[in-house]
Amino acid sequence: MRADAVANREAIVRAAVSLYADVGPSVSLRAVASRAGVGIGTLYRHFPDRVSLLRGVAEHVHARVSEAVSAYEAADPAVEAARRWRAFVTELVGLRLGGIIPQMAADPALLEDNPWLITMRNDGLDRLDGALSLAKAEGLVREEVDVTRFQVGLAQISRPLGRFVDEVVPGWQDWLVDTYLRGLRP
Amino acid sequence: MRADAVANREAIVRAAVSLYADVGPSVSLRAVASRAGVGIGTLYRHFPDRVSLLRGVAEHVHARVSEAVSAYEAADPAVEAARRWRAFVTELVGLRLGGIIPQMAADPALLEDNPWLITMRNDGLDRLDGALSLAKAEGLVREEVDVTRFQVGLAQISRPLGRFVDEVVPGWQDWLVDTYLRGLRP
Repeated sequence: MRADAVANREAIVRAAVSLYADVGPSVSLRAVASRAGVGIGTLYRHFPDRVSLLRGVAEHVHARVSEAVSAYEAADPAVEAARRWRAFVTELVGLRLGGIIPQMAADPALLEDNPWLITMRNDGLDRLDGALSLAKAEGLVREEVDVTRFQVGLAQISRPLGRFVDEVVPGWQDWLVDTYLRGLRP
Repeated sequence: MRADAVANREAIVRAAVSLYADVGPSVSLRAVASRAGVGIGTLYRHFPDRVSLLRGVAEHVHARVSEAVSAYEAADPAVEAARRWRAFVTELVGLRLGGIIPQMAADPALLEDNPWLITMRNDGLDRLDGALSLAKAEGLVREEVDVTRFQVGLAQISRPLGRFVDEVVPGWQDWLVDTYLRGLRP
């Protein structure tokens, strides 16, 4: 792909991730194109139908989670374990999984029609479980915390609450991440 | 009001609370009537316009929160403090505040048009702060936890995730309540 085509594709996927988080995968392709600042024709060139865009979003999210896990697993052990763990969880929260996962991975009809989504979700959970095991080994997470609950908690605390709440209760997200991490401790 | 009129009004408010939580206050009055199992004419007799229904919902939520706080403050001190606190927070979570508050109290335009909503929200926060102070005095919550953050955390963990997640990750809500309470501890 030419550089501007790559940039367009990236802009479309990012716009779709953000709109999926706010509205869900039922968002119109026209709204995605508009948010991405491209014409609808450009969107269709990259993603001929709704399912191919869904796949683009899922691959994007999966890749980001996977990279975050790899970075966490490879982090400098000289850095305090609790700081590495916090940075990792903060990065996951920043991915706005809270908006996206409930919309995508939790819709039975969507999963039934797109079995690759189940494979991708399970693979993402496996990667996340690896990070969770490391955090347990470092004494930061109770043994009984399982990855699906951990992920649900992550999804809930990372759900967007809108600009108004962000203004009225500044720092709520960091506070909630810290409270969650404290609650996971042995 | 006659007994069946009272029952209808109650059914309409409960339907509206539930639909506000899922969809937001923009939900159609027809959908509310249908969920409540009453005709649209019956709904209009009780709530002639959108704002009067909004007020009905806000009063209902405010009354439930207020009752829960009163019950917590008057609870038998022979019951272990942590159990009383947990029961109170679980009750708040059961009110589905997580769906309703972000939709209602966080919409600046809605608040601007309906100043009574701000009064009601502030009064609700005051009541909640009373309960939080009691929990602090009983050594269950860190001093620095402020009521707006506490409420945001409550809202996030009580957001509905849909029947599919409830089936795949059974007990996620109780687990998340416990994790949150543990995270709030000194």
